[in-house]
Amino acid sequence: MSQKDAHRTWRIGVAGLGTVGGGLLGFLEVRPQYAPAGGRAVVTGVSARSRSRPRTVDISNLAWFDDPVALAQSPDIDIFVELVGGSDGPAKAAVEAALQAGKAVVTANKALIAEHGAELAALAEAKGVPLLFEAAVMGGVPAVKTVREALVGEDIRSLSGILNGTCNYILTEMESAGSAFADVLAEAQRLGYAEADPTMDVGGFDAAHKITILAALAFGGAPNYAAAEVEGIAAVDLLDIRLAGDLGYRVKLIASAERAGEGARVRVRPFLVRKDHPIAQANGALNALFIEGERIGRIFLQGPGAGAGPTAAAVAADIADVMTGAVRPVFQGPAAGLSPCAPSAGSAAAGRAYIRVMVRDEPGVLAAVSEELAEAGVSIESFLQKPPGEAPGVPIVMTTHAVAEAVLEAAVARIGRLPSVLEPPRLLHIAGI
Amino acid sequence: MSQKDAHRTWRIGVAGLGTVGGGLLGFLEVRPQYAPAGGRAVVTGVSARSRSRPRTVDISNLAWFDDPVALAQSPDIDIFVELVGGSDGPAKAAVEAALQAGKAVVTANKALIAEHGAELAALAEAKGVPLLFEAAVMGGVPAVKTVREALVGEDIRSLSGILNGTCNYILTEMESAGSAFADVLAEAQRLGYAEADPTMDVGGFDAAHKITILAALAFGGAPNYAAAEVEGIAAVDLLDIRLAGDLGYRVKLIASAERAGEGARVRVRPFLVRKDHPIAQANGALNALFIEGERIGRIFLQGPGAGAGPTAAAVAADIADVMTGAVRPVFQGPAAGLSPCAPSAGSAAAGRAYIRVMVRDEPGVLAAVSEELAEAGVSIESFLQKPPGEAPGVPIVMTTHAVAEAVLEAAVARIGRLPSVLEPPRLLHIAGI
Repeated sequence: MSQKDAHRTWRIGVAGLGTVGGGLLGFLEVRPQYAPAGGRAVVTGVSARSRSRPRTVDISNLAWFDDPVALAQSPDIDIFVELVGGSDGPAKAAVEAALQAGKAVVTANKALIAEHGAELAALAEAKGVPLLFEAAVMGGVPAVKTVREALVGEDIRSLSGILNGTCNYILTEMESAGSAFADVLAEAQRLGYAEADPTMDVGGFDAAHKITILAALAFGGAPNYAAAEVEGIAAVDLLDIRLAGDLGYRVKLIASAERAGEGARVRVRPFLVRKDHPIAQANGALNALFIEGERIGRIFLQGPGAGAGPTAAAVAADIADVMTGAVRPVFQGPAAGLSPCAPSAGSAAAGRAYIRVMVRDEPGVLAAVSEELAEAGVSIESFLQKPPGEAPGVPIVMTTHAVAEAVLEAAVARIGRLPSVLEPPRLLHIAGI
Repeated sequence: MSQKDAHRTWRIGVAGLGTVGGGLLGFLEVRPQYAPAGGRAVVTGVSARSRSRPRTVDISNLAWFDDPVALAQSPDIDIFVELVGGSDGPAKAAVEAALQAGKAVVTANKALIAEHGAELAALAEAKGVPLLFEAAVMGGVPAVKTVREALVGEDIRSLSGILNGTCNYILTEMESAGSAFADVLAEAQRLGYAEADPTMDVGGFDAAHKITILAALAFGGAPNYAAAEVEGIAAVDLLDIRLAGDLGYRVKLIASAERAGEGARVRVRPFLVRKDHPIAQANGALNALFIEGERIGRIFLQGPGAGAGPTAAAVAADIADVMTGAVRPVFQGPAAGLSPCAPSAGSAAAGRAYIRVMVRDEPGVLAAVSEELAEAGVSIESFLQKPPGEAPGVPIVMTTHAVAEAVLEAAVARIGRLPSVLEPPRLLHIAGI
């Protein structure tokens, strides 16, 4: 390394001083020379919503900017760290301004990269500066670095995992405490584990942002958030968690991306996962990811997917990477040449499934349900009938052998119209991992 | 990136054409432009023991070198890939020659880096060229990159995991097939899973090389292989695998490195691991690693630790990293300033343990054994007495609460001298993970 870089001071501007920003400031204050390549990383300017809010770190000696865009453009910073959040608005404006001004950008903003990654990458590459976002996915677990750098050139077949800690915490609590979704969510909000508006998390959108980013890196395209199929956990019923448990499964919100033909299928939805699978054992706020490739086989990563410490550590790692002077495109090829990851139709995809049908306890009903499935060519793998509980009717629970999703959905819709069936049947897919 | 680098051809010299070298040549032949940073990676020269041995790739159009040192010094290569193996001899001579000639070096050689890493790093830094070795640890699982880059600046407390696939395969087979160590080893050798001379693997030395490298990166020192405490699996008895299983544990060869005072304790030895722990569930040839840090919490990595595909992928990733022009020291700071990771005395360390004592089935023997432990202040957690089997005597099996290792070892030695005890007791530590 050149002597110049080894003694250089890198001036960092940080926009957004929540727990992650506070964690980063605290770390850099104590350890400005943490990067082995030498040089010092010193925060010189900050921006946040409120200047006077009580903070764990003293910001009185740092340049203050009411407007993150002004901080991003400041001639007194070399690297702009964006921790504001949100796919548009000030976060996007500030990142664009920083890149336009020729500054390296480090961000934890998954929504921004998933929704505007391609245009930001083009701007970064035109200006010859890095745009890094390790902290956007899985907090301190290096999912982005693994897919982008360690598996460069690898033909990745699929990615699947748990990318939203809030949903995983809620599902884990529902199972262990036997509480309904709404009750666990309310408690999580009280404890600060879930946002006041939990839509991004429980709706599956946060996980969809993250898997969109990983899919772009894995399959060599631009992020295509619009093509992600997204289903959250609000409709996951405690009864299904219990019954799936009786059958040896746990319900997990799985974000997945699979190569399919010329495109990729990217989706987030609740899946049944066998209890002895490592993904099923990632409980609480843990994140976990399986990566399957042609040559590397299967790699599994697990760790805390959020939190001030892990996320700030990921931001610090990106800052250190900027300091090495590495030159690589933002995604897996120059932005100008990337196509959005093409969606692939999912209806032809086949997989196993769990079906719960609430029926009146009367003769002939099981035969009627079975007949619908048989006519559709859906083959039953296991069957469970429980005695009547508090709810009206009795549940008939089945798992199927692999069947095309479209075929299964049509059969389940027909079952829902049978006279003895009390409510629309619940269909949950079983993860093929 | 500069236009020049984006179109540059990087000429690769590969020394060692075993399965990994063959896999790399096959990959680069088909995908020379795999690196997103642009540029082509083209193998131009090779060296191996035999020129005429049948190979999966055609080397007839590549420059041939009988001597890897000559290849390393050739003016016609830019990056030297060392896949010869061995801590000294031609591998070391060739890597030194390449660095001396100002060429970037990529190696999969754990012995070389663990035993001579500091001096090679000093040479690489003096010449301003990278020396990369991702493939040396955990094959295609990016353990080196994670510790060096993703956790830069993180205060890592400990690393522990399964770093030798051959030992893990043997232990897994002993448990599942109920076969003795020697029988499983012979079968593994027949299948090509174990070397003709298995000492490096089953003696724990290969795992010790790997954990030595990770410890240097994690704790900011130079590799100190001489300080590693190493015990292999040759003495692991099938009976202990069975009895540990009855108690809810699996026997695993664990490589670990823990910060301890000013130094680090680095060791490899068989441990009992609870069956529901992710490390216990990494079976067969899998590798697995837990990393625990102050801010990031616990990160878990798992995947195939060897094999042509994963290892060649790791080498290809290192070559792509060279192409980015990143400048960072080989370890976590300039080599000149690194001290060897200081060993810390282990005798004060406390942990839980498993003890098996083979005794004559006669009155008073249990009391005598218990008394020795009580006098030493060793507290029993669980106790298992099995009916007599084929072996002479009956086993008394105990697990202890946490106790200083030195105290426990002394007590066990005294038990071994009791008149009713038929053979030296077996002591296995229980992993504190």
